[in-house]
Amino acid sequence: MAELLAPAPDFSGWTCPAPLRDQPRIVMGHGGGGTLSSELVEHVFAPAFGSPELSGFPDSAVLRLGGARLAFSTDSFVVRPLFFPGGSIGDLAVNGTVNDLAMSGAVPAFLSCAFLLEEGVELETVARVAEAIGAAARAAGVRVATGDTKVVESGHGDGVYVNTAGIGLVPDGVDIRPDRAVPGDVVIVSGPIGLHGVAVMSVREGLEFGVRIESDCAPLGGLVAAMLAVTPDLHVLRDPTRGGVAAALNEIAASSSVGVLLQERALPVPPEVANACALLGLDPLYVANEGKLVAFVPREHADAVLAAMLAHPLGAGARIIGECVDAHPGMVVARTAFGATRVVDRPLGEQLPRIC
Amino acid sequence: MAELLAPAPDFSGWTCPAPLRDQPRIVMGHGGGGTLSSELVEHVFAPAFGSPELSGFPDSAVLRLGGARLAFSTDSFVVRPLFFPGGSIGDLAVNGTVNDLAMSGAVPAFLSCAFLLEEGVELETVARVAEAIGAAARAAGVRVATGDTKVVESGHGDGVYVNTAGIGLVPDGVDIRPDRAVPGDVVIVSGPIGLHGVAVMSVREGLEFGVRIESDCAPLGGLVAAMLAVTPDLHVLRDPTRGGVAAALNEIAASSSVGVLLQERALPVPPEVANACALLGLDPLYVANEGKLVAFVPREHADAVLAAMLAHPLGAGARIIGECVDAHPGMVVARTAFGATRVVDRPLGEQLPRIC
Repeated sequence: MAELLAPAPDFSGWTCPAPLRDQPRIVMGHGGGGTLSSELVEHVFAPAFGSPELSGFPDSAVLRLGGARLAFSTDSFVVRPLFFPGGSIGDLAVNGTVNDLAMSGAVPAFLSCAFLLEEGVELETVARVAEAIGAAARAAGVRVATGDTKVVESGHGDGVYVNTAGIGLVPDGVDIRPDRAVPGDVVIVSGPIGLHGVAVMSVREGLEFGVRIESDCAPLGGLVAAMLAVTPDLHVLRDPTRGGVAAALNEIAASSSVGVLLQERALPVPPEVANACALLGLDPLYVANEGKLVAFVPREHADAVLAAMLAHPLGAGARIIGECVDAHPGMVVARTAFGATRVVDRPLGEQLPRIC
Repeated sequence: MAELLAPAPDFSGWTCPAPLRDQPRIVMGHGGGGTLSSELVEHVFAPAFGSPELSGFPDSAVLRLGGARLAFSTDSFVVRPLFFPGGSIGDLAVNGTVNDLAMSGAVPAFLSCAFLLEEGVELETVARVAEAIGAAARAAGVRVATGDTKVVESGHGDGVYVNTAGIGLVPDGVDIRPDRAVPGDVVIVSGPIGLHGVAVMSVREGLEFGVRIESDCAPLGGLVAAMLAVTPDLHVLRDPTRGGVAAALNEIAASSSVGVLLQERALPVPPEVANACALLGLDPLYVANEGKLVAFVPREHADAVLAAMLAHPLGAGARIIGECVDAHPGMVVARTAFGATRVVDRPLGEQLPRIC
């Protein structure tokens, strides 16, 4: 029976979507959260699933079920190494999904946790990751409600991969979406940027920067709740993970068809991040964060929201970094310290693969 | 700075839980859905997460959020090959999670979908998997609401892995759990068993069985709804995937502290599955299914529920295969065609790795 030996289906009718034609294979950048990732979602996943809303860069979906308004999100985690200064893949797996829920204004409530393990990995390593997940879940106020474990043969995996999905409850009156930014909105970042990416890279590459740089990995549900207590009318929230602040702002500018004007001098770049980036030829605007958010806030509420952020431990370094403008819709522009302007492009992929 | 080069945390305080001490590394069986999987959940994950309910073998968690009673579940899929007779990893990724929700009596509603891709895999393969996911989701009446894509370097993955999580709404009055079986319950299986595992193995091993055997991969939400229309008082539902009917019945027997007595002659084993299993030394009771369920139904409703199943396309082969008894609590026993009895043990792992 020849057909038993021929599992591959008939692919003869397939046509590669036009924007992807010069790259018929997956490259690292397709997982980088930049333009390549978006093209894959927009031209492959969203049409195949019949879910055009996936192209709109949402951190989480907001949906109504049984009378409740819920946020729903998922992320897989493939960071190397599994443990790094300031956190681990377990911390990322909880906080990454919790923060995606919080960026819809939701109160994170439940997580699923799926392990994809490689045959031969030490049970102790798995246990340590699980303990980190449990501790991070308790700190974030969420419960791991369901899970799964799959094992692949040695050489077909990479130790430990983790996927989490999360559900949260969106409070009445809250409508935070990447397409709600309007000219006049004030852009606030919740604290110093670039720490997570530099921390992971430092241990991966064995680099010494003269100081210990720790990941900022943290759950942002409490900070968002403090901001919403000032006003439910926050327009956009985003955690600038893969692709950094640059990718987050570009996605918002594109979704909302507005321009974003940054004041480069206002960007809170810690000296140790600036030094590491200078050494490596990186731009801190493109380095991942795992415990920060950018907020687009109506001007009349900006001072009060900033004050609430500054009063919260995870917003103590908050700064106004720019504003939303009519000019150059869809583009992010930075005014440099010398008064010139430069375009802050959307990254193609992630300059530091596998940082989350 | 030496600490930058030493990402491994201090593991000195870790003690391997007693039941796992003779196996300090992950083996394939830890992902097989049998005893090894359970030990990992019971002794490592559940205590670390502070979620003891995970040890109770639930297919999905049932939780209350914003006034709604929801089912929540996740599964990762690592099947090889990606496409097999009767389905693909995309069909499994949808139906596997949809069925876990349905086994709580929930109406499946939304899925997340996370791709873990290996650098170098053809875009066309990814697109075909995505198309299978979209088609399966439409057939199951669910919507892919959110997603994620990560890419790992060539040699650190295995082409395409998929994780889905799902949310469904549990109707009022429905309370289906693995610990609700009671002596007197009638055990029904929804149709012929063993097709999925044999179908995948046939293509993987290049075996010819003289007939084409197709996976039974299918979404069971509609069948469960038809059963619930007879009575909301179904006690237990389970889709016998990894570890087959034997693993499913053993989990229920253990959770409910009841005995299960099977009539071996009543088991619907298709001749082609029986032949393939005889050839390979496998027991059809342990072979995975992806479109079947076993139901524990109060005796007074059994005939009506069976009739409703037989009237549904996915229950057309339904059969009563046994009953729940006071004797031998926690054990599954089969009465053979010759009138003898044998114990149907819980499998240690999965006899056919990576079939889902």
